[in-house]
Amino acid sequence: MELRVTSNEVITVNSDESLLSALKRTGIYLVASCGGKGTCGKCKINVIDGDFKAAVYGKLTAAEKESGTVLACQTFPLGDILIAIPKESRLVIGDQIAVSKTKDLVQYLRSYGVDINPFVKTISLDLPRPTITDNISDMERLRRALAEKEIYSMVFRHGFVLPMGRTLREAEWKVELSYIEDRDAGLEAIALYSRKSVDYGLAIDIGTTTVVVYLTNLKTGEVIDIGSTYNSQIKYGDDVITRIVHATESGGLEELKDAVLSDINTIVNSITERHSIDRRLIHSASIAGNTTMSHIFWGLDPGSIREEPYIPLLNSFPLWRASMAGLAIHPEARVYTAPCIASYVGGDIVAGVLASKMHRNEELALFMDIGTNGEIAIGNSEWIMTAACSAGPCFEGSGIRCGMRATPGAIESVSIDPVTLEPAIAVIGGGSPLGICGSGMIDAISEMLLAGLINQKGKFLEGKSYRIRRGDDGLEYVIHSDKRLKKDIVLTEVDIENLIRAKAAVYSGISTLIAEASLTMDAIERVYIAGGFGNYLDVDKAVLLGMIPDLPEERFTFMGNTSITGSYLCLLSEELRKEAEDLAAKMTYIELSVSKMFMDEYISALFLPHTDMNLFPTVASRLMTAMTPMKFWLMTNPDE
Amino acid sequence: MELRVTSNEVITVNSDESLLSALKRTGIYLVASCGGKGTCGKCKINVIDGDFKAAVYGKLTAAEKESGTVLACQTFPLGDILIAIPKESRLVIGDQIAVSKTKDLVQYLRSYGVDINPFVKTISLDLPRPTITDNISDMERLRRALAEKEIYSMVFRHGFVLPMGRTLREAEWKVELSYIEDRDAGLEAIALYSRKSVDYGLAIDIGTTTVVVYLTNLKTGEVIDIGSTYNSQIKYGDDVITRIVHATESGGLEELKDAVLSDINTIVNSITERHSIDRRLIHSASIAGNTTMSHIFWGLDPGSIREEPYIPLLNSFPLWRASMAGLAIHPEARVYTAPCIASYVGGDIVAGVLASKMHRNEELALFMDIGTNGEIAIGNSEWIMTAACSAGPCFEGSGIRCGMRATPGAIESVSIDPVTLEPAIAVIGGGSPLGICGSGMIDAISEMLLAGLINQKGKFLEGKSYRIRRGDDGLEYVIHSDKRLKKDIVLTEVDIENLIRAKAAVYSGISTLIAEASLTMDAIERVYIAGGFGNYLDVDKAVLLGMIPDLPEERFTFMGNTSITGSYLCLLSEELRKEAEDLAAKMTYIELSVSKMFMDEYISALFLPHTDMNLFPTVASRLMTAMTPMKFWLMTNPDE
Repeated sequence: MELRVTSNEVITVNSDESLLSALKRTGIYLVASCGGKGTCGKCKINVIDGDFKAAVYGKLTAAEKESGTVLACQTFPLGDILIAIPKESRLVIGDQIAVSKTKDLVQYLRSYGVDINPFVKTISLDLPRPTITDNISDMERLRRALAEKEIYSMVFRHGFVLPMGRTLREAEWKVELSYIEDRDAGLEAIALYSRKSVDYGLAIDIGTTTVVVYLTNLKTGEVIDIGSTYNSQIKYGDDVITRIVHATESGGLEELKDAVLSDINTIVNSITERHSIDRRLIHSASIAGNTTMSHIFWGLDPGSIREEPYIPLLNSFPLWRASMAGLAIHPEARVYTAPCIASYVGGDIVAGVLASKMHRNEELALFMDIGTNGEIAIGNSEWIMTAACSAGPCFEGSGIRCGMRATPGAIESVSIDPVTLEPAIAVIGGGSPLGICGSGMIDAISEMLLAGLINQKGKFLEGKSYRIRRGDDGLEYVIHSDKRLKKDIVLTEVDIENLIRAKAAVYSGISTLIAEASLTMDAIERVYIAGGFGNYLDVDKAVLLGMIPDLPEERFTFMGNTSITGSYLCLLSEELRKEAEDLAAKMTYIELSVSKMFMDEYISALFLPHTDMNLFPTVASRLMTAMTPMKFWLMTNPDE
Repeated sequence: MELRVTSNEVITVNSDESLLSALKRTGIYLVASCGGKGTCGKCKINVIDGDFKAAVYGKLTAAEKESGTVLACQTFPLGDILIAIPKESRLVIGDQIAVSKTKDLVQYLRSYGVDINPFVKTISLDLPRPTITDNISDMERLRRALAEKEIYSMVFRHGFVLPMGRTLREAEWKVELSYIEDRDAGLEAIALYSRKSVDYGLAIDIGTTTVVVYLTNLKTGEVIDIGSTYNSQIKYGDDVITRIVHATESGGLEELKDAVLSDINTIVNSITERHSIDRRLIHSASIAGNTTMSHIFWGLDPGSIREEPYIPLLNSFPLWRASMAGLAIHPEARVYTAPCIASYVGGDIVAGVLASKMHRNEELALFMDIGTNGEIAIGNSEWIMTAACSAGPCFEGSGIRCGMRATPGAIESVSIDPVTLEPAIAVIGGGSPLGICGSGMIDAISEMLLAGLINQKGKFLEGKSYRIRRGDDGLEYVIHSDKRLKKDIVLTEVDIENLIRAKAAVYSGISTLIAEASLTMDAIERVYIAGGFGNYLDVDKAVLLGMIPDLPEERFTFMGNTSITGSYLCLLSEELRKEAEDLAAKMTYIELSVSKMFMDEYISALFLPHTDMNLFPTVASRLMTAMTPMKFWLMTNPDE
């Protein structure tokens, strides 16, 4: 019989095989932190057509059951079956292409002028077998052998000593010792092996929305495989603030921690299983995440982050053990946490700036990471200022009527014919659109502005097109109408207001930092755009919106996920980890929420592109070209 | 109604009160590691007379139930009741006298020329409250305050950071920080408190047979209370060898570890409850035990200790955390383990030598600790040699027909009328004897030798007294006959052989070390006798037996439990802990089991007192006085 997935895969299945294992067999991994026992409730799929037998429905709600949702691990086909996999259920394990894209990471690391030098090192020791005349203890024997290699002091934790005697004897006294060098605690033994083994490491990016893991060979720097998934904390809230609120509720912190840990562990289990690698050979990990994500990963209360004066528990994290977090690798493995700057500028930004190299160059650069939140950094090799813009998650679709993340089904670009005023759309993955993502919204708004469907305040000019209609939230524009699904994809005036507030927060953050540095916008020689969003953003449109400064296009560089790149660099190089620490110490944090200047800048930016058109000369001229002077005057002065 | 205990206490009880709680109320503590839930099966008592209701019999065997054994925590009286408490069930919490005896310990500590300087220290920190302009993280704030006190580096474990934010705020930023200084890892934070609190510490002696705990105020050195109990590991074997064998069986190591930990924790719980002290304020502990006990305490496999070439996993233990052992004090508290010398000379001996001060004096001293095993050390401030004598546990009653430990009911001394050849006995605690303990055996054998009932080979002269009779193990001597119980207390020829082998092991150990040092016995200027046994030993009789060298009585000093004294010294003084480490490094271990010289010395010592009577001049003259020359000749040449 056949199993068809809506993405067009067709898999041959047997009735005694769960859909989870059938999918896994063909490389489609689902999130299944319980290992397929039906208890975690994460491997949800929708059966569109076909008969099946579901052993257990687990945590599914009555409504979910009704709508054909089942747990893939508990569902067995009774004949040909067609299913759809919701994006949240899908675990993305890197295919050949994704991994090959990371091939030049080792090269990139070397471009910093450093060698591979991970914080876990392995040393070979050949101990003389004990005799009645050389009868010192196992530990003294090990210390003596280390002293012969000029290592005179090492911390041996209880967890290391427990299996030590057995390992030494099984290895016939020829062992490999993995150890770390810790800033505060000096050398610490991690594990003892009886034969030559590879040290593995994990570079991890913990985003508010997604989690990415690189499994890496610590000797060669090679990325063996990549996995990514949605951060399951999403069910407790879309942004960091709602997560912090949940963390302060009874049991909430544990729920959040368990959610993201099970995401990471599921990826680690899947990747290591796929490559037949023993998870206990993973001796180190490096994580980069915003301050809240870093706190939650370690099970630390992020409560004070959202209370004035916005103080995190810690910015610089010790090299704690993997078992303290619950990371399913060697329990004594150490985990490096990219240093945070302040409550709302975290390790992801430090890792990102490190990956951009802006701190090494003389040219003035702007680094922007517009993900679930918006963080920026401005500076060069001399100084760096940083701030968080509270852009909110609306560019990721949150709080937007038909908003969604940039995943298949999302409208990613919109163009509006200046004559017919009819929109043309492009959908990620093709097919019918399910919603609109950040880049689609930016496109739509800038196109509507150019077409004269909205004014510079973001208000619809009613009657301009039959697509402008009155809905539940006031006026709205119909981007796409689906007769079959009876569902229209619209952008409402409220949505546009939200987006203008978000873009204003980003732009006024930048202008505040520029003003703090007594510079002007055109002094910015380079703009690094990071974050998942950075992959799709149309600079031209973002400038039109007034979200990013009106600078020549050649000054913009798209960096992709700089958090994972920085995390990788820190995993593999002692020197770059040190550089990240120095960088963090150098970055000056500006608290915008209490800045009078920021408030003024923000008010001025609540306009498309800005109340001060002199800041956006190319936009001013485009708007002039797009419409008659009279129209332009009317649009900029709608209340006249 | 009344509860009577055979030791003559009478307690008024109610029918809704368990016997366990009634006993506790009057200061009679039983071992009850489960806290009185009926599951651990340790609070066994025997009901001799009276009615009762037993809720649960738990782990009791059918035979035990039959014989009137009940669990005190599950038994409620229905009227006046008379019970007996087996010694194993009794937890001895120090009374006024026991504690007052430790009053001079602080004085003793100062006699070393050191001050109280525990390895846990507390520092007061007054942090400025965070503001929007001084918005560094809690951790940086703490580090900054420490730097102001010139502490620039400190390790902060995950367990310390977890509650840190809450404590800082509850304390309104005025805190007390407890930290330790670790040889390898530097300064490490232990706990943060919101108000001035006392640091407590535990000095612990883990004997093969008994466990002793001193709860100590780390500031004043005062011993607040004392607790002791039998090491529950006894049920898995009397001596270290049987314990090691058990440890190598599946689950055995955990059973042994759990047994001794629950003994210690029961004492700690009882003492702290009694003094209303929060167990989490106990920030350090110091343990002294033989090498096997030290390994088992930490859950480490002692297997290789009994396999040639007798290698322990480690002799010098890092300052591991209390939670690693399962000690019910502050989880981050550090536990100092007195360093061991070799597989059969452990931290109890290093602690003992430290307590004797022999390593500080020029005079040549012999240190003997005859407990469950027999360890000796010989030397002075220049050098110290040490060895284990494999005396075995027979002085503690093990392997002896009517042997028992030196507890109430034991015959502790025996004298035999040289004319009537009738014995007179003294029983610990008075009343009818239940058996004979080590000092009683030594008395009995030396008296029998003086009375001519046995010859110098330890063989009975049959027909000499009606008390010499033929039993299951050959000839035996009836020390006490109980018509009512129909039970005689005897010493058999096999018992005497065992005791001669044990005393020979001790003496030949001493003579081997003396020979190794190219000295003679009379060079020994001081003999320190340690161990529970040391409290009761009659030097005169032990010399007669040939167990200890024939030296003037004024050279002998009884030290009592030097292991707990040394443990206390290490708990309270950094300098003395360092001194213990240096001492351990200085002590040369001689492996007697492979020494040809020891075997020769041992064979020569299998005689009462010794084949070379020149070594025991006072004994030779006493034997001469006690009998006619002819008799003496006959006795020393029984086969002629």
